[in-house]
Amino acid sequence: MSQKQILLAERPSGKPTAETFRYTEVPVPSPESGQVLIRTLYLSVDPYMRGRMNEGKSYVAPFELNQPISGGVVGEIVEANGSKLKKGDFVIGNLPWQEYSVAGENEVRQIDPSLAPIQAYLGILGMPGLTAYFGLLDIGKPKEGETVVVSGAAGAVGSIVGQLAKIKGARVVGIAGSDEKISYLIDELGFDAAINYKTQNVGKALEEACPNGVDVYYDNVGGEISEAVHKLLNKFARIPVCGAISTYNSDGKDVGPRIESTLIKSSVLMQGFVVGDFSSRFSEGARELGGWLKEGRLKYEETIVEGFENIPQAFLGLFEGTNLGKQLVKVADPSS
Amino acid sequence: MSQKQILLAERPSGKPTAETFRYTEVPVPSPESGQVLIRTLYLSVDPYMRGRMNEGKSYVAPFELNQPISGGVVGEIVEANGSKLKKGDFVIGNLPWQEYSVAGENEVRQIDPSLAPIQAYLGILGMPGLTAYFGLLDIGKPKEGETVVVSGAAGAVGSIVGQLAKIKGARVVGIAGSDEKISYLIDELGFDAAINYKTQNVGKALEEACPNGVDVYYDNVGGEISEAVHKLLNKFARIPVCGAISTYNSDGKDVGPRIESTLIKSSVLMQGFVVGDFSSRFSEGARELGGWLKEGRLKYEETIVEGFENIPQAFLGLFEGTNLGKQLVKVADPSS
Repeated sequence: MSQKQILLAERPSGKPTAETFRYTEVPVPSPESGQVLIRTLYLSVDPYMRGRMNEGKSYVAPFELNQPISGGVVGEIVEANGSKLKKGDFVIGNLPWQEYSVAGENEVRQIDPSLAPIQAYLGILGMPGLTAYFGLLDIGKPKEGETVVVSGAAGAVGSIVGQLAKIKGARVVGIAGSDEKISYLIDELGFDAAINYKTQNVGKALEEACPNGVDVYYDNVGGEISEAVHKLLNKFARIPVCGAISTYNSDGKDVGPRIESTLIKSSVLMQGFVVGDFSSRFSEGARELGGWLKEGRLKYEETIVEGFENIPQAFLGLFEGTNLGKQLVKVADPSS
Repeated sequence: MSQKQILLAERPSGKPTAETFRYTEVPVPSPESGQVLIRTLYLSVDPYMRGRMNEGKSYVAPFELNQPISGGVVGEIVEANGSKLKKGDFVIGNLPWQEYSVAGENEVRQIDPSLAPIQAYLGILGMPGLTAYFGLLDIGKPKEGETVVVSGAAGAVGSIVGQLAKIKGARVVGIAGSDEKISYLIDELGFDAAINYKTQNVGKALEEACPNGVDVYYDNVGGEISEAVHKLLNKFARIPVCGAISTYNSDGKDVGPRIESTLIKSSVLMQGFVVGDFSSRFSEGARELGGWLKEGRLKYEETIVEGFENIPQAFLGLFEGTNLGKQLVKVADPSS
């Protein structure tokens, strides 16, 4: 039996394109002892994957040329050859972009489909949720009455950041890229203000939306949008630096005003992080997020593209800002 | 009786020049009740003063045009009209660049000339010492065996930073601008390595001097030197951002690679600060510094220019890197 697989065909220079990817057919592998065969149901496409397409050191190892791209996958066990997991169980893991994968029992984690839809484990209860949780609460430390600005606000991470900041009693201002997203942030998620960076003058709009300046800037995008926020930072402001999607395709030519003078002027803390820095506390984060979700205090959206063959398109869409909330690809329906 | 005074003649665009300053003669003021008349003995010139020469918000208010420039001064009471201070006492305060000043008794702080030479209160026991202490130990948090890099290493702050890092058991690498300074850092202060940024390839020299990468970068300079250090940051590195002297004269055109991706890649913390952020703990800092000074574990240098008329020249020299350690101007000898 053969299956589809997507390889990294070339390292993109600048923006990835359809040529970055190559489809191939490979045999469905068989699980050895202690292993399981997993059918890919949902698969996550994420901005950080762009970094892995470059050669050289990033915070995760680069993808190899002519090898499958990999990422977060929710799947179903179709063949079990171990002692813990059984056929029909749902799991999450870091797996290749292919229809079926083999993994060791301990390389994947079982998830509970009764708590939330299985794909939520790629979003609000998974990496995006934990990234929002630790970046905002451990680095940003918003206090009641402070102003929190989040860029990439309608994305998987940003939309949770804003809601967590509201739970903590802050004034929340989001920056996003379409009027649909702006309405979503204000009307659905309860943001106090939101700015469309594609149609508004971000600097001016921010000044209006942040009459008391900015205390926490949760940065998902970098670049000129961040520059505009930096101008409004209050004394002792904090900037969790989570992503720089505006620059991921810039091919090393990402220049702008140097930040040092701004940091000194207002005694600002800026801290880069990846969710893995907090891995010892994932259970704490998931428990808290799960609690707020249950209480109806956290909402989330998914943008789901259907079909294995549309994975590259879903990934490329991240850089056009077409997704609302977590961008997923649905590869197959569960059998049960 | 009249005295000399130095005014801000114009706001410099780019590098200050002799035209930035204007000398004038004004009467020596008389102390009213609760005030003292202070004779200026030593006066501190500091890079941060460049920022105050600009219009607009900085972390301290701008100097006013055609008004005297002010800064740290050690002086002697020549006339006392209060209840605490008496003639002959030595004090430190923020006072105008003039030969005599009047101040309220509580606007200046008495210093003890038996503990250290009076001008040390403008250096190792004053703002530069405290700036080194809090920036390095509270933000940089060097651990035994880690590598600490400091730029502006032979300056008033940098030379103390390096010695404090040695006291904490770190490997210390300094960056400075002359071979004389390099020898001073290594031979006198015990730095493990030092790099002359004017004659060496900083990137290459840093790689050799930091075989295990950089854990703490105490940044006094910003600009291209800092860029070179940023390339070697280890996971969880810390950057206390104390100054950006390389950019103070750049007239807003200070651009370079944006920092966000670097911070994310290695989960780096970058924090701007001014010594005043720690004002509630100055006595702790001074006590610790005084202790190490007494034990002979801290050395310091001063570069003293003589004569009131040479204040501008001493200030301008800061941007040429001519000073070793704290740059002071000696205006007069104590009478006693």
